[in-house]
Amino acid sequence: MTESRMSTARLFGVGVGPGDPELLTLKAVRVIAEADVIFAPVRRAGGRSLSLELARAHIDAGRQQVVVLPFPDARGDAAWDGVARQIAETLGADRRGVFLTEGDPLLFGSFGHVMTALRAIAPGIAVEVVPGVSSITAAAAAAGVPLTDYEDRLAIVPATADPAEIERVLLDFECVVLLKVGSVLRERLALLERLGRLDHVVYVRRCGWPDQQIVHDVRALMDNPPSDYFALLIVRQN
Amino acid sequence: MTESRMSTARLFGVGVGPGDPELLTLKAVRVIAEADVIFAPVRRAGGRSLSLELARAHIDAGRQQVVVLPFPDARGDAAWDGVARQIAETLGADRRGVFLTEGDPLLFGSFGHVMTALRAIAPGIAVEVVPGVSSITAAAAAAGVPLTDYEDRLAIVPATADPAEIERVLLDFECVVLLKVGSVLRERLALLERLGRLDHVVYVRRCGWPDQQIVHDVRALMDNPPSDYFALLIVRQN
Repeated sequence: MTESRMSTARLFGVGVGPGDPELLTLKAVRVIAEADVIFAPVRRAGGRSLSLELARAHIDAGRQQVVVLPFPDARGDAAWDGVARQIAETLGADRRGVFLTEGDPLLFGSFGHVMTALRAIAPGIAVEVVPGVSSITAAAAAAGVPLTDYEDRLAIVPATADPAEIERVLLDFECVVLLKVGSVLRERLALLERLGRLDHVVYVRRCGWPDQQIVHDVRALMDNPPSDYFALLIVRQN
Repeated sequence: MTESRMSTARLFGVGVGPGDPELLTLKAVRVIAEADVIFAPVRRAGGRSLSLELARAHIDAGRQQVVVLPFPDARGDAAWDGVARQIAETLGADRRGVFLTEGDPLLFGSFGHVMTALRAIAPGIAVEVVPGVSSITAAAAAAGVPLTDYEDRLAIVPATADPAEIERVLLDFECVVLLKVGSVLRERLALLERLGRLDHVVYVRRCGWPDQQIVHDVRALMDNPPSDYFALLIVRQN
C-alpha cells in the first residue's frame, strides 16, 4: 500500500436487484467486473449473502478479493463505523471496491449507512452509487398490478408501524406498500378487511427468488398466514 | 395472420431505466432482442421517444418492427383502448412484442394502462412485466443521499398536489419525494423554507441524461427556479 496522501481509492454501492440475477443492470455488471474488492453484507456472521449470490456470475474469485461483512448489531449510521473502517483499510490508497446490496442501495438498503460512515472516516475515498431494481417495483411486476400513475400518491411503510398510522395512510394514498409484513400479516389483513379493501390487495413473498409466491386472493391467507420476513402487501384504492 | 383461436402472442412491458442506457437490466436487453415488434410510446405525435433512445443499441431495425405510439389525449385506462387495439392487431396470433417505458413500467408509468386495456380487449395475449430502475432511486444515487432504512416511511407525491396535504406528508414521513416539481418549484421551496427544511432537500433534474443537474443548496434556486418537467425534490427529516 502506498503512503500517498492523495487517495484514488473508490467505493461503488451497487444494487443487484431483488432476487433474479437477470435484473442486474449493465452498469452493475461492468462496475463489479472492474472492481479489485467485492464487499458483500450478511445479516449475521456465517449467514448467506444474498447479494453475493446474485452477483456471483460476474465475480472472478481468482482475480478479485471477496470480503463478507456482517451487519452491525446496533442501528444508525455510527453503528457502521467498524464496517467503514474495514472497507477503508481494505481499499488502501488506490483500490477500487464494490459494496453489493440487494434491491437498490439507498432504498431500505444498508449502503446509506456505509456511505455516511465512510465519508466521516475516510473522506478521501470517492463514493458512487449504482441504483438497482427495487423489490417493490419487482413485486408489482411479478404480480402484474400497477402501482401508480398521473396524480397518484404512493406510500411505502413498514407493516410494523403503528396500526392507526397505517390506517390513515391507507385512506390518504392511492397506493400503499406495506413492507416486512411477515410478523403482523394476520393483523394487517384484519385491518384491510375492516376497511373493505381485501379485493385490492396482493401479497408477494420472496420476489424474484425460485420460491417466490404471489397471492391475489389474500383471504386465503387469513386462516394460516405465512410469516416470511421478505414479504410485502401492495394495497390499491379500487 | 393465422385464424387460430389459441393465441401465442405475448407482450412484455419493459422498463429501460431513468436515462442512462447502462441502467437497462440484462433481462430488458434479452427481452428486447427476442421481440418481433418494439412499441415505443411518445408523449405527443412526432415527439422523441426517450425510451426508444435508451433501448436503441439493442434493437435490430432490419429484423424488428418498431411502432411509435402517441399517448392518448385523455387519462385513465379506457383512454388507452386505441393503443391496446393497435398493439393487439400488430401482434396478431403469435408475435412477441415489447412495450418500452422509461424508468419502471408500473411506477408512474404508462404500461399499467396498456396492460389493463389489453387484458380487456385481447385477453388471449399473455402480458409480462420486466421491472426497471426508477428515476427516484436513480436520483438518490446521483445525488448521493440515502432515501430510507429501518423503520423509515417513504412518500412519493406529485409536487402539484394540494400544499396542505404536502405539508402534512412532510411532517409525517421520514423521506418525501416530490415529483414533477417544475411548475411549482418556487412555491414548494417556500413551503420547505417555512418548515425549516431547506438544509435537507436535494433537487435533481433530468436524472441520468447528459444535461442532468443536481443542486444540494436549493436556496440557490429560489430567485430563479428552473421549470423543467423532469425534476424532483428529495426531502429528508434531519
